[in-house]
Amino acid sequence: MIGNIFDPDPEKTGAFMLRLMKKLYPICRSITGNGVRETLGIIGKHIPLEVVEVPSGTKVFDWTVPPEWNIRDAYIRRVTGEKVVDFRVSNLHVLNYSVPVKGMISLEELKQHLHTLPEYPDWIPYLSSYYRENWGFCLSHNQMKELRDPFYDVCIDSTLAPGSLTYGECLIRGESEEEIVFSTYVCHPSLCNDNLSGPVLVALLAKELAKTRPRYSYRFLFIPETIGAITWLAQHEEMLGKIRYGFVVTCVGDRGPSTYQRTRSGTSLIDTIAEKVLADSGTEYRIRNFTPISSDERQYSSPGINLPFGSLMRTTYDDFPEYHTSSDNLGLMDPLSLADSYRKYLEIVYILENNSTYLNLNPRCEPQMGRRGLYDSIGGRKELPFDRRGLFWVMNFSDGEHSLLDIAIRSGLKFREIRRAADILTDHGLLRKI
Amino acid sequence: MIGNIFDPDPEKTGAFMLRLMKKLYPICRSITGNGVRETLGIIGKHIPLEVVEVPSGTKVFDWTVPPEWNIRDAYIRRVTGEKVVDFRVSNLHVLNYSVPVKGMISLEELKQHLHTLPEYPDWIPYLSSYYRENWGFCLSHNQMKELRDPFYDVCIDSTLAPGSLTYGECLIRGESEEEIVFSTYVCHPSLCNDNLSGPVLVALLAKELAKTRPRYSYRFLFIPETIGAITWLAQHEEMLGKIRYGFVVTCVGDRGPSTYQRTRSGTSLIDTIAEKVLADSGTEYRIRNFTPISSDERQYSSPGINLPFGSLMRTTYDDFPEYHTSSDNLGLMDPLSLADSYRKYLEIVYILENNSTYLNLNPRCEPQMGRRGLYDSIGGRKELPFDRRGLFWVMNFSDGEHSLLDIAIRSGLKFREIRRAADILTDHGLLRKI
Amino acid sequence: MIGNIFDPDPEKTGAFMLRLMKKLYPICRSITGNGVRETLGIIGKHIPLEVVEVPSGTKVFDWTVPPEWNIRDAYIRRVTGEKVVDFRVSNLHVLNYSVPVKGMISLEELKQHLHTLPEYPDWIPYLSSYYRENWGFCLSHNQMKELRDPFYDVCIDSTLAPGSLTYGECLIRGESEEEIVFSTYVCHPSLCNDNLSGPVLVALLAKELAKTRPRYSYRFLFIPETIGAITWLAQHEEMLGKIRYGFVVTCVGDRGPSTYQRTRSGTSLIDTIAEKVLADSGTEYRIRNFTPISSDERQYSSPGINLPFGSLMRTTYDDFPEYHTSSDNLGLMDPLSLADSYRKYLEIVYILENNSTYLNLNPRCEPQMGRRGLYDSIGGRKELPFDRRGLFWVMNFSDGEHSLLDIAIRSGLKFREIRRAADILTDHGLLRKI
Repeated sequence: MIGNIFDPDPEKTGAFMLRLMKKLYPICRSITGNGVRETLGIIGKHIPLEVVEVPSGTKVFDWTVPPEWNIRDAYIRRVTGEKVVDFRVSNLHVLNYSVPVKGMISLEELKQHLHTLPEYPDWIPYLSSYYRENWGFCLSHNQMKELRDPFYDVCIDSTLAPGSLTYGECLIRGESEEEIVFSTYVCHPSLCNDNLSGPVLVALLAKELAKTRPRYSYRFLFIPETIGAITWLAQHEEMLGKIRYGFVVTCVGDRGPSTYQRTRSGTSLIDTIAEKVLADSGTEYRIRNFTPISSDERQYSSPGINLPFGSLMRTTYDDFPEYHTSSDNLGLMDPLSLADSYRKYLEIVYILENNSTYLNLNPRCEPQMGRRGLYDSIGGRKELPFDRRGLFWVMNFSDGEHSLLDIAIRSGLKFREIRRAADILTDHGLLRKI
Repeated sequence: MIGNIFDPDPEKTGAFMLRLMKKLYPICRSITGNGVRETLGIIGKHIPLEVVEVPSGTKVFDWTVPPEWNIRDAYIRRVTGEKVVDFRVSNLHVLNYSVPVKGMISLEELKQHLHTLPEYPDWIPYLSSYYRENWGFCLSHNQMKELRDPFYDVCIDSTLAPGSLTYGECLIRGESEEEIVFSTYVCHPSLCNDNLSGPVLVALLAKELAKTRPRYSYRFLFIPETIGAITWLAQHEEMLGKIRYGFVVTCVGDRGPSTYQRTRSGTSLIDTIAEKVLADSGTEYRIRNFTPISSDERQYSSPGINLPFGSLMRTTYDDFPEYHTSSDNLGLMDPLSLADSYRKYLEIVYILENNSTYLNLNPRCEPQMGRRGLYDSIGGRKELPFDRRGLFWVMNFSDGEHSLLDIAIRSGLKFREIRRAADILTDHGLLRKI
Repeated sequence: MIGNIFDPDPEKTGAFMLRLMKKLYPICRSITGNGVRETLGIIGKHIPLEVVEVPSGTKVFDWTVPPEWNIRDAYIRRVTGEKVVDFRVSNLHVLNYSVPVKGMISLEELKQHLHTLPEYPDWIPYLSSYYRENWGFCLSHNQMKELRDPFYDVCIDSTLAPGSLTYGECLIRGESEEEIVFSTYVCHPSLCNDNLSGPVLVALLAKELAKTRPRYSYRFLFIPETIGAITWLAQHEEMLGKIRYGFVVTCVGDRGPSTYQRTRSGTSLIDTIAEKVLADSGTEYRIRNFTPISSDERQYSSPGINLPFGSLMRTTYDDFPEYHTSSDNLGLMDPLSLADSYRKYLEIVYILENNSTYLNLNPRCEPQMGRRGLYDSIGGRKELPFDRRGLFWVMNFSDGEHSLLDIAIRSGLKFREIRRAADILTDHGLLRKI
């Protein structure tokens, strides 16, 4: 049923994700508009993606879907014609959702609309003004220091008009209607860790799981952050009861160690699974509790929705200086880190799919393993092709109260080793799945 | 309702307590007698204090109120008339509750009645013999070494006779009949940390809370240690059900870090509050579990009474060498430490008064904060006059199951910040107190 | 009732156990056969031991009692007659349970039947082949390197034939039919820490407890490992409900610190007791959780039996290189370590026998200790012949919910001190055993 997609090649998966990211990187995305559509079009070449348009003005809980924003060009030009700030060089130069502006204005007035990062004088900040009409340019502090002319020719060739909010959705039906959701956001322009790393990982996950008929159903959401999550939740309220667990996928491509952010309760099965995956990984990792100062998990886990959503990141958005700047670019990305993040999400899925509780069919004392070929014939010699410790752990704790995951955690053995032991014992008629 | 008494000035409060302590310091107190009455008289100038007299011989549980002890003078005089030990120099010189004695006695016999501290040869120990008739002098070891005359003229001009045990009580009625008790003891003669620091802190607390109409009722007890607590409990058994929580206030004036001793169960709300107050304080602190080797909490928390009493001290009575010696004097006291202890007790009261559970009125996803002026208009810029993290924490966890205290603890934010966030959200119609 | 056997002399107990071990050391034991009988015969001189024979072929759960194995001699001899490997030098030289063999064989063929430890070239490994017919020799790697002749004269003078499995059992009846089991194994040939140290400790424990009439009944089992435990359990299924707790005694004689392995649940009363005994011991120690990769506790705690069995060892079998080699010999044994292990097992029994819950008969405030001679007459002086802290802890927590063990753990005082305080308070009518 679920084949060898669970043992992916790190180089191939890392290369796939980085290649896809490079295609998506130049696009100027926002919470609405053609940038999102183009992004979903590229992703949709790899997975069966349904693209949904929600009209501007639609009420979604306390919010209203805003007018659609599109942009064609923007620059600041000296009167001599020389462009000193150019949208075509970096789409971060425009304050995202800027209303159109065109004309000659004084440096003094222009400065009211310029945003820089004095502490990182070479970096362009990423800023937006979605819900208050405004216009502006973001540029490096060094660039701004060069602006000394009395007047500049300013142009933002954008439109802000009724249209729609666009998101993409992919559902892989499993044996059960119960769903696992992977949510990622596609509203950031040329920014990599936060967050092109999320969509490319989720795209690969969907692409691979689409080849299987899993136990659970899996839903993959490519939405604009905040308003997109709110919109999706508002329009799917009647089916939220089907959602067992979910993840917000973001910041998965940098070179830092993995960080798992727990669900709101901190006691969900996926917390246990994610922490076991990290423990089994042999890599350095961190665990942190849920915080509502976060991404879309604060919508999914708002008190009236209250779905258990975790997030397996690398360096979290609140912890790297390049966050929301031009330095969160392709150079920050590491294909093997992407592959490692992918592998860990996949392993979470593996455990979700393979965790079960078994019953020891020979519960009084241990069965005679030797005559079944499950014990070294000469005591003290190691002859078996597997670690027989797993057999003993599975036999002892398959009392109907411990799942394979419980046994893996108690034993300190890897989940896969415990799973294998359960298979061997089942094959020998010593164990039965409940 | 409760005004700015909750933001006290450290210098003023420290000075008030030290001034009051200096007035009380010279008085020779004991578990009964005029020293207690004089002490309560001075405290009663600041707060509405009811002074109660319980006659000697009154049965109080397993105990009997002892005869009343009073002393006018005491000395050891050389036959030449020179006083070598003089009660008027330090009231610690007399074994507390000494029966009267007068006459010439040999050095040998006298030595049976002398008490010193060889390990601290300059300090006078504080000792008492309440329940076995005895007499004695306490003096420094160096003083004793000077006693070489064959005979001395000895005088203890005391009386031990039927009278009464005296205690003071102050009740501030709040909206609820449920009471918070602050108990301190007034039986120690010229000794500061243990325990004049207790009565002066409790007096200031009562004086300030008397200006308010609090949620809870607050009862302040100024009693002799052990027999006083037993007497009060024996005579108030019928009303003990009203007592929600209590504190024994002692050792709050030295320069050491704060130490919180938990209630008997260790799981009382005031344990949570006191530990949060300490965590929020930004100062070094210690937590220790309840111990029956302690002060009056062992009466309040005896198994048949079982009231949750904590104690927020600085250096505990079992941990400073000056304890019960002449070196526990005004020099050991630090007005800013007194003020800091006061401030922390007040903050406990603040949380008791202000902790509530709220309900998020927009529980499905977050409300649109921006259009309410509660979010920076340009994403990523900090424009608000308060830390908006509190708003997100309060919204997410105001699900009816988490009090503001719970949210403050989970978020790591200070209680007051969470309280402020709740006020802002309530003002905007987003939150309702349950 | 239980006298001063609970304060044993370390030198005497250590010497007793070492002496007994030296008598047992030369015997070639196995899971069946005369070696076990001889061993039980020697132990039976010290304790009332019932020796049980279970015929070969008897079904015991999933297993069958194997044929009985006996051995008289074994060697590898050069054609010149010189013995190069000799069972009479070390009984480890024979692969335990080897079938008989006799004749001249080539070195090449012989080598198929030789076992060495290349990483410890001077040590002889201990190996067995109980359930697959085989023969072999174990020798040091250096010895093997000397074998260069083309042919050797090989002899194993053993028999493998219907007979029986032998075990020994000793029951000391107490006031209650509820049993505490001490199980140890007697199937290892000349090997000391694992496991002659177990039988000698258990023998001494039985010898001493036989002098008393304890609260619980105590059962001591001297059985072959695995098949013996399975046989005993299979033949006593109807009475297993009487067993409250048990221990597997092994690896108790080396110089390492004590290690307590918890029961399967980890929350049994004997876990609490054993950990308190170690904490009170003032010696270094380790705690580890139950593991089914262990000795007979994996039978006693198999899911269908599920008895709480702990194990107090020193260095565990999986943690010392001499394990199952000729270096686990008398030189590895330390009489004071044996005595210390014995003392700790005895202290566990002491707490099992002496732990009770008491009721404070004067629960409202403390009783007046002074008039009962239980308090220093002059406050602050230490006059009592015992630590009065125990009195306060026992009074405060004897509320019907805390046993003496609970109080000892909460107070940090030793169990024996708390026990003594309970006796004093009971003598003064202040406490009553529930």
